[in-house]
Amino acid sequence: MKTINVAIVGYGVVGNGVAKILEEKRELIRKKSNVDINLKKVFTRNWNKKFPYEIDKSKRVNSIDDILNDEDIDIIVEVVGGIEFPYKLMMEAINKNKNIVTANKALLAEKGKEIFKEAEKKNIRIGFEAAVAGGIPIIKALREGLIANNINKIYGILNGTTNYILTSMYKEGKDFKTALSEAQKEGYAEADPTLDINGTDAAHKIAILSSLAFGGYVDFSKIYKEGIENIDILDIELGKELGYILKLLAIGKAHGEEVEIRVNPTFLPANHPLSKVDGVFNAVMVEGDSVGETMFYGKGAGSLPTASAVVSDIVDIAKSISLNIGREIEITSLNWQHKDLNLTKVKDFFTRYYVRFTVPDITGILAKVATIFAKYNISIAAVIQKEKVLQKYQKNDEKIVPLVILTHTASENSIQKAIKEIEENNLTREKTVLIRVEDEDR
Amino acid sequence: MKTINVAIVGYGVVGNGVAKILEEKRELIRKKSNVDINLKKVFTRNWNKKFPYEIDKSKRVNSIDDILNDEDIDIIVEVVGGIEFPYKLMMEAINKNKNIVTANKALLAEKGKEIFKEAEKKNIRIGFEAAVAGGIPIIKALREGLIANNINKIYGILNGTTNYILTSMYKEGKDFKTALSEAQKEGYAEADPTLDINGTDAAHKIAILSSLAFGGYVDFSKIYKEGIENIDILDIELGKELGYILKLLAIGKAHGEEVEIRVNPTFLPANHPLSKVDGVFNAVMVEGDSVGETMFYGKGAGSLPTASAVVSDIVDIAKSISLNIGREIEITSLNWQHKDLNLTKVKDFFTRYYVRFTVPDITGILAKVATIFAKYNISIAAVIQKEKVLQKYQKNDEKIVPLVILTHTASENSIQKAIKEIEENNLTREKTVLIRVEDEDR
Repeated sequence: MKTINVAIVGYGVVGNGVAKILEEKRELIRKKSNVDINLKKVFTRNWNKKFPYEIDKSKRVNSIDDILNDEDIDIIVEVVGGIEFPYKLMMEAINKNKNIVTANKALLAEKGKEIFKEAEKKNIRIGFEAAVAGGIPIIKALREGLIANNINKIYGILNGTTNYILTSMYKEGKDFKTALSEAQKEGYAEADPTLDINGTDAAHKIAILSSLAFGGYVDFSKIYKEGIENIDILDIELGKELGYILKLLAIGKAHGEEVEIRVNPTFLPANHPLSKVDGVFNAVMVEGDSVGETMFYGKGAGSLPTASAVVSDIVDIAKSISLNIGREIEITSLNWQHKDLNLTKVKDFFTRYYVRFTVPDITGILAKVATIFAKYNISIAAVIQKEKVLQKYQKNDEKIVPLVILTHTASENSIQKAIKEIEENNLTREKTVLIRVEDEDR
Repeated sequence: MKTINVAIVGYGVVGNGVAKILEEKRELIRKKSNVDINLKKVFTRNWNKKFPYEIDKSKRVNSIDDILNDEDIDIIVEVVGGIEFPYKLMMEAINKNKNIVTANKALLAEKGKEIFKEAEKKNIRIGFEAAVAGGIPIIKALREGLIANNINKIYGILNGTTNYILTSMYKEGKDFKTALSEAQKEGYAEADPTLDINGTDAAHKIAILSSLAFGGYVDFSKIYKEGIENIDILDIELGKELGYILKLLAIGKAHGEEVEIRVNPTFLPANHPLSKVDGVFNAVMVEGDSVGETMFYGKGAGSLPTASAVVSDIVDIAKSISLNIGREIEITSLNWQHKDLNLTKVKDFFTRYYVRFTVPDITGILAKVATIFAKYNISIAAVIQKEKVLQKYQKNDEKIVPLVILTHTASENSIQKAIKEIEENNLTREKTVLIRVEDEDR
């Protein structure tokens, strides 16, 4: 049995987990897979602190070159985070003929095209199971388990921080700020939670999943994203009355030659499988034309769950190396249609909408709003008009009430035009709230 | 690109789906995986009828030997059902050096040891993703995606028919017989549903999953199984009051050197992810020591979902053949501990219990029952004692009421002894109902 040598670059939360699994489970992995994996070197910038998993001094290195120039290293695990440094590292690693395993979704989403092109040229494998949904083996499922499917749609809850916040808003009626600061206290949100809260992290992940599902590169800068920072608890409550739960969904949908990719707060029916995914858990729903609906659920982050995915990639690559398999067969899988994906423009999104107008409580408002919706061919599925004036909406002498309209499927273009016309007709008193709804027309 | 030739034996529901996918998606599979798969021959006993997917006459064969003796056939897909015929077929196929893909859970659960031993000798690959949970790629997840994990527990809803019946009992208050006959009308239960209803089908599947998860062969005849045929709607309703939903669970749990494998109706907390799995859907929960809890959800049966799994196995094996990989690396995976699993004896099961006694409505009964539980060191978590006498339990002049006790974790041995003593003390008027509960002690 040939021994495959691995080096880890970056000794943070994930790096520690990978080292722990590789060292403690070397024998288990050997039994299960017939490959022997040796953790040979670990790089981090500063060894002068305590680590959750202490690595033997003989394996610690202080220079990346010590790894890149080591002929015996077969696989480099990049778990250093950021973009510039790991990008440079990967390009060098590829040139040194090292296979790579990474958990870096930002890097792959934003620089994937360059990296994979270079990797293809050099016949280098890049494993990235850990980049999306932590320990859930969704990348492998898309590449292999569901290979007999045209994927119509892939969507899910890909960010644990925002799901934790939305869960506590929904279940405990907390407002966004309170829920966020509690999540920070519990360690489920970072001190600077911007990239989680504004949807960037989920967008990185759906970019990668969409590439795999639909077979082409995605221009990350063109992905539509909307975070949860402006979510009003009022909408969570009104949505609940309609039978909906609010989740930050990342969505990729095929429409002929186009793919609609977006991240936005989304109302889901309470009985939808994703509605039950609470707290920091992640889940990905895949709709394939053969398999129908499948869902993959688990922890989306954390040291050992993420490391579990990293190690499964290491084992896969190690098997191939052991068997002397040419790499040609797998490396095109992020781009198997050999093209860049055409993203649907925002104005062409086609979905259901929840629209909350803030209107004066006077006769005829609903008629006026409904008339404008009809003008733009938007069909109304349900209306909530409250008699009771909500405390926070009492201003001056005018009574202000929320008017919620749930539409059937409509184009974003129509809905935006209708809202604009309603606002321009001075029918509203605050900015209108628009939340997309993922639900069948009934 | 080498072309890999496939033959299908058995042209029923799954066979039709496999043929359809292989023919209609040949190009898709080529793009995604770089292998070319040609459906060369299909065997069925009688070609004189209509098929959902009609196969070209040139591919139809009337004799198995036409396939077994065809040197060009690389992979045989066994989707014929039953045990004796496919067992003979597989053994012959192995001897003819053909790789095999099968959806036959009964065969693998009952004859897996013989088949895999023979396959190992001859270096033959056997793919069986379709044997468990239809299109859900759970076999691959266990073998590869979760390789870095010691699996502590694997459990799930593995039979769609019984889940459909239990869902309509729970949601619509139907009794078992009504729910079953409706399921038969809807096509979700067979004319003879015995193997589904009595837990045998789920037991076949958990035998296979347990082998993979814990790394040894399972003596199928020793698996404890209990079906849903005697489930009283009363218990579903009383369980609901305790916050539980009744599911037919198949469970494999590691306890040191032993594995507890069983299929039985099980109460789950209403907020458990498996509680939300309704109708004909399947779901498998895996608890790994690195990844934590993960769940895989989807359709457990049906032509195309099952065929989706068959085709993913075909592609995997086709890749290996294309790459001339030796087969040594994978074929031991059902038995990677190189042993037979030691099954926990029923008396040593250790779980929580729901016990419903049917008792006369007289003072002191609960005290007597509780005293006997205490004698056997069984700790009581909750009691439901109804004042109202249930109609169906009114007999003679004695008022008969249900007395439900929910226990903390206890051994099966203690619970059985306690029930026996209570019954022998003439405290009960009907057979006591015992339902296991999958829930943390709180």
